[in-house]
Amino acid sequence: MSRSFSLDEVSKHNSPSSCWVIIGNKVYDVTEFLPDHPGGAKIILKYAGKDATSAYEPIHPPDALDKHLPREKHLGSLDSAAASAVKEAAQNRRKTKDELRVEAAHAAKPPVSRMLSLWDIEDVARKVLSYKALAYYASAADEEITDRENNRSFSRFFFHPRVMRPVSQCDPSTTILGFKSSIPVFVSGAALARLGHPLGEANITRGAGRKGIIQMVSSNASLSYAQIAEARVSPEQPLFFQLYKHRDDHIAEERVREVISLGYNAIFLTVDAIVAGNRERDIRAPFELEEQEREADQASDSADKSAKQEKEEGGDVNLLGTAGALIANDDLDMSWERTIPWLRSITKLPIVIKGIQCVEDAVLAAEAGVDGILISNHGGRQLEYALPCIEVLYRLRQQRPDVFDKLEVYIDGGARRGTDVLKALCLGAKAVGMGRPFLYAQSAYGEEGVVRAIDILEREIVRGMRLLGVSNVKQLVPEMVEHVNWQPVLSRL
Amino acid sequence: MSRSFSLDEVSKHNSPSSCWVIIGNKVYDVTEFLPDHPGGAKIILKYAGKDATSAYEPIHPPDALDKHLPREKHLGSLDSAAASAVKEAAQNRRKTKDELRVEAAHAAKPPVSRMLSLWDIEDVARKVLSYKALAYYASAADEEITDRENNRSFSRFFFHPRVMRPVSQCDPSTTILGFKSSIPVFVSGAALARLGHPLGEANITRGAGRKGIIQMVSSNASLSYAQIAEARVSPEQPLFFQLYKHRDDHIAEERVREVISLGYNAIFLTVDAIVAGNRERDIRAPFELEEQEREADQASDSADKSAKQEKEEGGDVNLLGTAGALIANDDLDMSWERTIPWLRSITKLPIVIKGIQCVEDAVLAAEAGVDGILISNHGGRQLEYALPCIEVLYRLRQQRPDVFDKLEVYIDGGARRGTDVLKALCLGAKAVGMGRPFLYAQSAYGEEGVVRAIDILEREIVRGMRLLGVSNVKQLVPEMVEHVNWQPVLSRL
Amino acid sequence: MSRSFSLDEVSKHNSPSSCWVIIGNKVYDVTEFLPDHPGGAKIILKYAGKDATSAYEPIHPPDALDKHLPREKHLGSLDSAAASAVKEAAQNRRKTKDELRVEAAHAAKPPVSRMLSLWDIEDVARKVLSYKALAYYASAADEEITDRENNRSFSRFFFHPRVMRPVSQCDPSTTILGFKSSIPVFVSGAALARLGHPLGEANITRGAGRKGIIQMVSSNASLSYAQIAEARVSPEQPLFFQLYKHRDDHIAEERVREVISLGYNAIFLTVDAIVAGNRERDIRAPFELEEQEREADQASDSADKSAKQEKEEGGDVNLLGTAGALIANDDLDMSWERTIPWLRSITKLPIVIKGIQCVEDAVLAAEAGVDGILISNHGGRQLEYALPCIEVLYRLRQQRPDVFDKLEVYIDGGARRGTDVLKALCLGAKAVGMGRPFLYAQSAYGEEGVVRAIDILEREIVRGMRLLGVSNVKQLVPEMVEHVNWQPVLSRL
Amino acid sequence: MSRSFSLDEVSKHNSPSSCWVIIGNKVYDVTEFLPDHPGGAKIILKYAGKDATSAYEPIHPPDALDKHLPREKHLGSLDSAAASAVKEAAQNRRKTKDELRVEAAHAAKPPVSRMLSLWDIEDVARKVLSYKALAYYASAADEEITDRENNRSFSRFFFHPRVMRPVSQCDPSTTILGFKSSIPVFVSGAALARLGHPLGEANITRGAGRKGIIQMVSSNASLSYAQIAEARVSPEQPLFFQLYKHRDDHIAEERVREVISLGYNAIFLTVDAIVAGNRERDIRAPFELEEQEREADQASDSADKSAKQEKEEGGDVNLLGTAGALIANDDLDMSWERTIPWLRSITKLPIVIKGIQCVEDAVLAAEAGVDGILISNHGGRQLEYALPCIEVLYRLRQQRPDVFDKLEVYIDGGARRGTDVLKALCLGAKAVGMGRPFLYAQSAYGEEGVVRAIDILEREIVRGMRLLGVSNVKQLVPEMVEHVNWQPVLSRL
Repeated sequence: MSRSFSLDEVSKHNSPSSCWVIIGNKVYDVTEFLPDHPGGAKIILKYAGKDATSAYEPIHPPDALDKHLPREKHLGSLDSAAASAVKEAAQNRRKTKDELRVEAAHAAKPPVSRMLSLWDIEDVARKVLSYKALAYYASAADEEITDRENNRSFSRFFFHPRVMRPVSQCDPSTTILGFKSSIPVFVSGAALARLGHPLGEANITRGAGRKGIIQMVSSNASLSYAQIAEARVSPEQPLFFQLYKHRDDHIAEERVREVISLGYNAIFLTVDAIVAGNRERDIRAPFELEEQEREADQASDSADKSAKQEKEEGGDVNLLGTAGALIANDDLDMSWERTIPWLRSITKLPIVIKGIQCVEDAVLAAEAGVDGILISNHGGRQLEYALPCIEVLYRLRQQRPDVFDKLEVYIDGGARRGTDVLKALCLGAKAVGMGRPFLYAQSAYGEEGVVRAIDILEREIVRGMRLLGVSNVKQLVPEMVEHVNWQPVLSRL
Repeated sequence: MSRSFSLDEVSKHNSPSSCWVIIGNKVYDVTEFLPDHPGGAKIILKYAGKDATSAYEPIHPPDALDKHLPREKHLGSLDSAAASAVKEAAQNRRKTKDELRVEAAHAAKPPVSRMLSLWDIEDVARKVLSYKALAYYASAADEEITDRENNRSFSRFFFHPRVMRPVSQCDPSTTILGFKSSIPVFVSGAALARLGHPLGEANITRGAGRKGIIQMVSSNASLSYAQIAEARVSPEQPLFFQLYKHRDDHIAEERVREVISLGYNAIFLTVDAIVAGNRERDIRAPFELEEQEREADQASDSADKSAKQEKEEGGDVNLLGTAGALIANDDLDMSWERTIPWLRSITKLPIVIKGIQCVEDAVLAAEAGVDGILISNHGGRQLEYALPCIEVLYRLRQQRPDVFDKLEVYIDGGARRGTDVLKALCLGAKAVGMGRPFLYAQSAYGEEGVVRAIDILEREIVRGMRLLGVSNVKQLVPEMVEHVNWQPVLSRL
Repeated sequence: MSRSFSLDEVSKHNSPSSCWVIIGNKVYDVTEFLPDHPGGAKIILKYAGKDATSAYEPIHPPDALDKHLPREKHLGSLDSAAASAVKEAAQNRRKTKDELRVEAAHAAKPPVSRMLSLWDIEDVARKVLSYKALAYYASAADEEITDRENNRSFSRFFFHPRVMRPVSQCDPSTTILGFKSSIPVFVSGAALARLGHPLGEANITRGAGRKGIIQMVSSNASLSYAQIAEARVSPEQPLFFQLYKHRDDHIAEERVREVISLGYNAIFLTVDAIVAGNRERDIRAPFELEEQEREADQASDSADKSAKQEKEEGGDVNLLGTAGALIANDDLDMSWERTIPWLRSITKLPIVIKGIQCVEDAVLAAEAGVDGILISNHGGRQLEYALPCIEVLYRLRQQRPDVFDKLEVYIDGGARRGTDVLKALCLGAKAVGMGRPFLYAQSAYGEEGVVRAIDILEREIVRGMRLLGVSNVKQLVPEMVEHVNWQPVLSRL
Repeated sequence: MSRSFSLDEVSKHNSPSSCWVIIGNKVYDVTEFLPDHPGGAKIILKYAGKDATSAYEPIHPPDALDKHLPREKHLGSLDSAAASAVKEAAQNRRKTKDELRVEAAHAAKPPVSRMLSLWDIEDVARKVLSYKALAYYASAADEEITDRENNRSFSRFFFHPRVMRPVSQCDPSTTILGFKSSIPVFVSGAALARLGHPLGEANITRGAGRKGIIQMVSSNASLSYAQIAEARVSPEQPLFFQLYKHRDDHIAEERVREVISLGYNAIFLTVDAIVAGNRERDIRAPFELEEQEREADQASDSADKSAKQEKEEGGDVNLLGTAGALIANDDLDMSWERTIPWLRSITKLPIVIKGIQCVEDAVLAAEAGVDGILISNHGGRQLEYALPCIEVLYRLRQQRPDVFDKLEVYIDGGARRGTDVLKALCLGAKAVGMGRPFLYAQSAYGEEGVVRAIDILEREIVRGMRLLGVSNVKQLVPEMVEHVNWQPVLSRL
């Protein structure tokens, strides 16, 4: 990789038959990789012969090229004139309408100290996130019904608070797979944090470490697993790994061995996202954005013609969206019989099944001898009309209370308040995972946003425990919640 | 029919006592037919002595005059001067406000490749359809409650998705009455496709043929049964026939024999539409349109006086609407004892009862020995407060599971997503019919719209099956759905 | 009553100590009547010494003065100069903002032939009614919850329609207390029809007579009982009488004897309105109107001062409203033991208890031997949170089906569609009463409005029967309706 | 306290190390008190060396300084020049935007005689209250769901009204802990009445006394307990005391002994507010107000710079809100075993537990031998998702009817109508408490507002009793209410 290239030279390789791209002043030949790109060849070809850095970086970890592109395709670097030209072009690039909106939103956001709830933080994040990032973070399957119902379902559980119990000493801490957690909440796996903030997943790692809760790192993180491990506040800070299993067992094994060697502490095998959910907001984002820019252009200059032309052509629509690309190579043929023994054979780490969605599979998981299950419908992003997670948990408690003795049970999806967490714990959950709230927190305020979110949750949980009359999490019991048959009016949904 | 006529001559026959009309340059004497016209004499008299082509064509199949008007009333053709004059008049006619709106909507619609769901297609169709066509397609009985509930009812069924099952090989195909269908969906009978697109039902025939699903053709199609048969992509493409039984058994028999001879493959006897439902939007369409044009007129010229006059007169309102006219001669006295044996006596084709709305009648149908039942409330267009079809299916599954062993059960009404289809299949349906979605698809994008709609459904069904953990339709079982007692918030309704 | 008076003379009697009023050119001394006026003395004193005709007439029957004011207080007539002056003053009076609005609404309303449903008619009526009239007609107790729930409750009953049954011959007629009714609907008692139309209750009498349904006449009609009897289309036309029982048995007996002698055919004893409901819209109407006029005045002249003054004074608010005044003398101490035998002792006419609101009282009514019960919560105008009538009927059918064998059961409140009527009949009601719909119909279109309303209902009922598979009302059975546990989305409420 | 001070001298003590404040022309050294101030040191330091009267007075009773600040820290008075300067400064102070809004709202409000319901009064109060006062009064926990559900829950209880029962004599009175109450309603404890009206709690005391109902006085009243006792209309007027128990038993005992000596008649021990609820509206009020004023400033002058600066600093947010400060020293370790015997040991007054929220604790209270329980979730201000009070009452009636024989049961939270009160009485409550409605009534109209509110309730209760067929409160029985499974549409929520 000692060669250096002029822009002119690179620009000649601008077609499917020879496709070079510049990323971070380096030149890569991706011609042979085009058909294997999970996000499709089309998006790469848009940058054929050109600088692709700004599009590439937020959605790929730095080690992606090393892992996926053979060494010999790393052709070399730009020469200094080219590097300067690329840099200047990036600086002179006219900002898009959406980028200008984001800048203004960041300037106008309130100080983090005024964030009183996770909803407040989400409100800020929805303003400061780019259109594309918000579409990826917020989108869910089809009409997004399960996503909304995940949250609304908590509202049909009411408390039977107990009074006249000593609660001045109140300890909200618990353990998860034996690891201490300052509150019964963990960061659930969620990909592409750099879409929302340049420091990405490391914001969460540091915030979680400072406050004593545990982060589950996605296979599709936008930092490398090593970078995230390095971001820990101490070597003892536990990290869990959310495994998307590659269809090729060997590639999958390599991924597991990498995180073992980095000191990750548990494997959450994701089983509810073997194919991409139909996240229409995410899929639609590219052409919604295009429409926005076109309108902006029409106001300022005469870009009419090409816009019209493109419209008439229509062209392909990438139906996978950002999410689909990430899991394009996942294993569609996992099974209890094959996959659990395989995973056990390569690691001694605790194994949790992420994505259990009914009582029957919870029972099978217990029989398979895993260490825990995470009841989850992937934040409503996969199968529309999967039962909300708190409803599944409730059914498990009603129908098979014995399962809670055999493994640890967690839920994620829809929890936003301390009371949501407490309801799940009353029903037998050991902890509650949250994904989007931490993406939003780091997008709005970086590491400090993550710390604030945990502070808020801790305050809500401790207050809730005291008002329920309990002084530690073990005192949270099923008798303290009631599943009512009416639907409260929610101001949010 | 060798005579030729001048416009002057035709124009003299402009009264109930002698009423001629021009349709497609031909001259017809409809004087004696006036009292028998299902849509009423009034609408014909509006065109007495004049050219009626543009009003006639979209709502009558080309063979209607041959079938319903005696040969001797087909008087002859216009002479060439008259033909030119009629043509010129049609071209010079000032477009109505609604026609201009439709033209603009067509010009602005997005390319079909950006349609992500049936809802997207419906949104486009609602913009590009004429006021009258949309009123006919979209209208339902009374307050349209059953129409909305048909759709909403699906949302009270949630899934129990199964994980860790091999699903890379996933086959969504099934058979309907022994005929192969690429997905468990068929086109349910829906009339007057030419109201929405000049090629009408043939768009659906070709789209269905190309994608391997089956079309049920309405007795009230706006193309002739022969034209539709000819539109098939191959002679093997199956077609079902939706029979509205004429009160005169002989006329009814003639209709059945016609479709047998054309190679149709099954008879769906429609029993839920013996009288017209109260579709107020459809009934109201003529005077809503009149009002629109009047407002347009008042802006541009002084049509005030006649408008006012008409208003004061009030005049008759056709309470049947478009729909009522279509079934004006239907048999109100069908019975299990009389009608099924009669139909069996004239055809060996499979017989399905379309319009079963309760468990008791499903049982009677099984006892009557028919081949299938289509649980349907006619898209909510007939009896307001008929139970939604998925609710009837659920009750049948709960109360009389034996019926599913005796005949094939289908449902239609309200399904719009792959998940809707899968819920019905879990409960025992062999396939799900859709009517309006295909009318909308062909109205918005012609044959390509139909193909796109089927593509969307196939993608949604396959994705849904995989996320449910099944690899063929037989694995869809009642345990996979749960009827919940809350109502999700829907963004659409 | 031979004396005649000048305006000057009358105007001197303008105080509580001597209070004369002019009504229809006649002069009355109402000084001693002031404390007995059910609507309060204040409203009369507003007209002391002046012409009160326009305020008096729409809310009092013409025989009210004969019945309630001793002969010697009918002082005489205006002299001709006075009569002219009064007439001229009435003509020159500046119309109020509300009167101008009503005139414009009447001019703009669509022809009656375009009315497709009772809702259409109500929409017109809500536009053409005076503020005060609409407030009286539409208002209900407290937040008007029971009024809305009366209607919404019907929407939780769905049909099990039957197919393949001969229904070409379909007879919607029934009998009520032995009297023939062309459809199972009657006009329920509703007061003060002249507030909405100058011909008042006679519009309903004639419309009902022409279409063959039965009117129940309110004790508080704005025409005399005799005038209504005279409006019948034939002497055989049945009329029912809604009795508000006066606390003085003798006065009550006199009222009953009057209607017997006029040929009325049944007594509906009203038991749910012994005190006035809290109809805030009705109570608020006077000051809302005052506010409207004040705003109009402020625009046109300087009426500021007095308005401000009145505001500061505040003054009494009549908390009874129009409705309260009408029943100010009702009997609060009726009982099964005392009242039914008393009524039986003075008439052989059928007796129906109007206002049964729970199963227990339906049973007591059957034991008391009355001929019928009308399950009613007075259109939601009395006790907020009385159960909706269809819900009470349903409970009666579930818990005490024997009651239906002992007397006739009717319901009123909330029915607006043929399907509503059919649901009630399926559950065992003999007929369904409607009050407001007929007030609205006559207000909007007079007698023709009433005829149209009945035509609409008949068409809806016959269509509904056919689509349910029944050819006469006896075939409507409980198995045909199901009480569902979800709430449909209604476009109206 | 004989010394007198110049403003100059006071102004030197403007820091944490020496902090003096002026309240009502008196000078206090609060340096040592700073860390103990329940509302935090920051808010005091804002006034260090300055006049704090206007901020201090509405939220502290006049005896607060005597009780909480040692005698020697009451330094003396302002000299006459200083007193004049302070007075002049107060008069010349520019009114805030919010103060101007409140003044205009008071001028525009309708006369009290036009208030027809408690909702009307609340509507006025919401307009005339300062932003801060409304935020404190109206706010509730988290999303304020329990607050709304408290009210909505009543709407799922419908009546079975009885007819034909003598009700002309109707007595709505009852007793509470043996004390006569003209209607089964009492004023529930609610703090800081002077935020809404300068006369504060005394408005309620006098209104309640005049109408014969009983007031429960909050520990956190903004008048002294003595001032409230003095406001009674007669020495016999009963008063209840809502005890927030201080964590120090001796201080708590002192408080109880004070109210005993003042003649208070019962102790309501508050157990549901040991820590502050998360009332975000209240917490947010200071910075919302700041924002308002900043906007006003920016319009009129150039205050930009400091505003911007403050924003950038962010600064601490007081997460306790007004409410939190009030209970900062409450006892978190109360228990049935310890606290009830302690309270019994210091008083013979009846003891009621305020804040029972489930059946289990109602039973424990009965076993503890207290005189009554008030089922309450503190107006939804403490634990979000505590069951609504009427639902808890209903469960108690269903599951443990024996408890009603052992002690008196009251509820508060959400009742706004006479029908709400009657439903609770049917289910076994002896009386219903209302808090916010009386705060609103006195804020809008002072003492007359309180009288009007009670008049409205009395009228609604008597009317409701008559329409239910009962003539005294003992006749209200469980059979008269039904818990329905649907949710009525409410116009308010």
